[in-house]
Amino acid sequence: MIEDKNQQRTPLSEFGEFGLIDHLTKNFEISHSSTIKGIGDDAAVLSFENKKIVVTTDLLVEGVHFDLSYMPLKHLGYKAVVVNLSDVYAMNAKATQITVSIAVSNRFPVEALEDIYAGIETAAKIYDIDVIGGDTTSSNTGLLISVTAIGEVEEEVYRSGANPKDLLVVTGDLGGAFMGLQVLEREKEVYKVNPNNQPDLDPYTYIIERQLKPEARKDIIKLLKDLDVKPTSMIDVSDGLSSEIMHLCKQSNVGCDLYEDKIPLDPQVISTCEEFDIDSTTVALNGGEDYELLFTVSQADFPKIQANPNFSVIGYMKEASEGMHLVTRGDSRIPIKAQGWKNFND
Amino acid sequence: MIEDKNQQRTPLSEFGEFGLIDHLTKNFEISHSSTIKGIGDDAAVLSFENKKIVVTTDLLVEGVHFDLSYMPLKHLGYKAVVVNLSDVYAMNAKATQITVSIAVSNRFPVEALEDIYAGIETAAKIYDIDVIGGDTTSSNTGLLISVTAIGEVEEEVYRSGANPKDLLVVTGDLGGAFMGLQVLEREKEVYKVNPNNQPDLDPYTYIIERQLKPEARKDIIKLLKDLDVKPTSMIDVSDGLSSEIMHLCKQSNVGCDLYEDKIPLDPQVISTCEEFDIDSTTVALNGGEDYELLFTVSQADFPKIQANPNFSVIGYMKEASEGMHLVTRGDSRIPIKAQGWKNFND
Repeated sequence: MIEDKNQQRTPLSEFGEFGLIDHLTKNFEISHSSTIKGIGDDAAVLSFENKKIVVTTDLLVEGVHFDLSYMPLKHLGYKAVVVNLSDVYAMNAKATQITVSIAVSNRFPVEALEDIYAGIETAAKIYDIDVIGGDTTSSNTGLLISVTAIGEVEEEVYRSGANPKDLLVVTGDLGGAFMGLQVLEREKEVYKVNPNNQPDLDPYTYIIERQLKPEARKDIIKLLKDLDVKPTSMIDVSDGLSSEIMHLCKQSNVGCDLYEDKIPLDPQVISTCEEFDIDSTTVALNGGEDYELLFTVSQADFPKIQANPNFSVIGYMKEASEGMHLVTRGDSRIPIKAQGWKNFND
Repeated sequence: MIEDKNQQRTPLSEFGEFGLIDHLTKNFEISHSSTIKGIGDDAAVLSFENKKIVVTTDLLVEGVHFDLSYMPLKHLGYKAVVVNLSDVYAMNAKATQITVSIAVSNRFPVEALEDIYAGIETAAKIYDIDVIGGDTTSSNTGLLISVTAIGEVEEEVYRSGANPKDLLVVTGDLGGAFMGLQVLEREKEVYKVNPNNQPDLDPYTYIIERQLKPEARKDIIKLLKDLDVKPTSMIDVSDGLSSEIMHLCKQSNVGCDLYEDKIPLDPQVISTCEEFDIDSTTVALNGGEDYELLFTVSQADFPKIQANPNFSVIGYMKEASEGMHLVTRGDSRIPIKAQGWKNFND
């Protein structure tokens, strides 16, 4: 499905270890004053003066988190960065540095690693972060990318600060990344049967991009500051809305009413759900990988966010004893339940 | 060879994702005032006030960096932490926090992850560091551990500060980890042929421990401070002495004379080298994984380190134009050469 543009295949063994890392990271520039020393020593050296810092780490594993038959390597590098930055923004922090470790089969040519690094570099430029270190090693099997992201924060926002009566707000729209994945999986099956088939992916552009090239909501952190809104709790939507709501409720010791008719869905998500005969609310609740921000604000802040198209108020928090419920369009109340760990149940 | 003590086998899928992480990390305690929030939110929150911080990351991959047929899982968890701390100490920093990400096959029972985490916890206690985050995910194939270590530093020491005439100093002794690996590989082959064979590993206790349970030289950072010695450059010996000397020389733009007869070798390394008919100097130069510290000091500091059994002065730095040489016992001068990236040349 993805055209192989890497006509050139330089074996990894052509470079020594340090030659390879130098080669791959030679374009990386340092832009933050907090980065005193980046790549090239036993460790990077950073200085944040009096600011607090946040640290988060995530692994992307081939065959579990991505499928190279439709995930271009450049997008993979980009996405590996973005999913980590999303966690930084979810703390109300500014992302400043990342380290990147890659385990890669020696079946891969140098050009494949160059593609991954090109995606990492693009993300670093767009999100204005310094790549300060990492490790590239061989693997006997699949490709794996581990990113650690660091940010600086003045007033961090935890998952645990929500209060009863706070409004529950989500950015953007939900379910797109999951439906994009469904389309890509379907096209992969079609391709297996008929490799000459040219799929028409135009009706799915937005949702495929949500899957292959997600963005982290850096803009929202700035917007909240400009609007003078400090969320009482915040989390990013990586596992699906229901899972994230449960985290906020459990850690804040509150309950929640979530209104089905308020969940923001893109028209492409709705039409693709109809095509696949999947319930769009289920997709929004359990799909994951949207990397939107879910947060709570006190009702006093409602006027500040009310008219802003970036935000949807989708529910409100209650006493913990009242539980967590989805209030459906038909006005029934359905308990919000945990999703298992899909990766281990495969 | 390693007895399987895990009679119990609880499938990973028995826990939800968050239940599993909670289960594995429930014993971890926070001891540093710089850790404001550890595991449990989108990111950890740290505060170092006016101190600079160092950040380093390393991947350990099954089949490349370790072999589960002789590496007990608890030791693996311990080693994954230690190799990262070693990089922190090599900056003259104090290690304070780590994040740990693990990709593991769902063939593994929960008890296997518990063993890995027990090793991580032991290292965290011994080295006094907080485990502040991480990620545990499934892998279709092998086991992989990615650790990011963070430390605080007042006066960092880079690889680049060595000057001509500085003395080259190494801690402890070299080549043990490599020879321990040779013994373990040999016993693995014997075991394949005769699983009932009980190997006598007594003559190899020290070198096997160097391979399976290496230590990072936290003590040296304190000792250097107590002795009021600030190295001009420093690196840890992870890839082998010759590779590390080349890093110091290249980044400091100096040359070096290394004296073969000064290289510290444990008697077990010498006797095992004889048994395997391997040259012990070659082992010390290229073996790697000793996690000793290699540093340079100005000659004025010689009296401070001279009598200390932790240190061996093994050479001195010269002008870059004079090159890097091993001065042999027979007084010949052999250029020190790069080792390729063994992992990619396999």
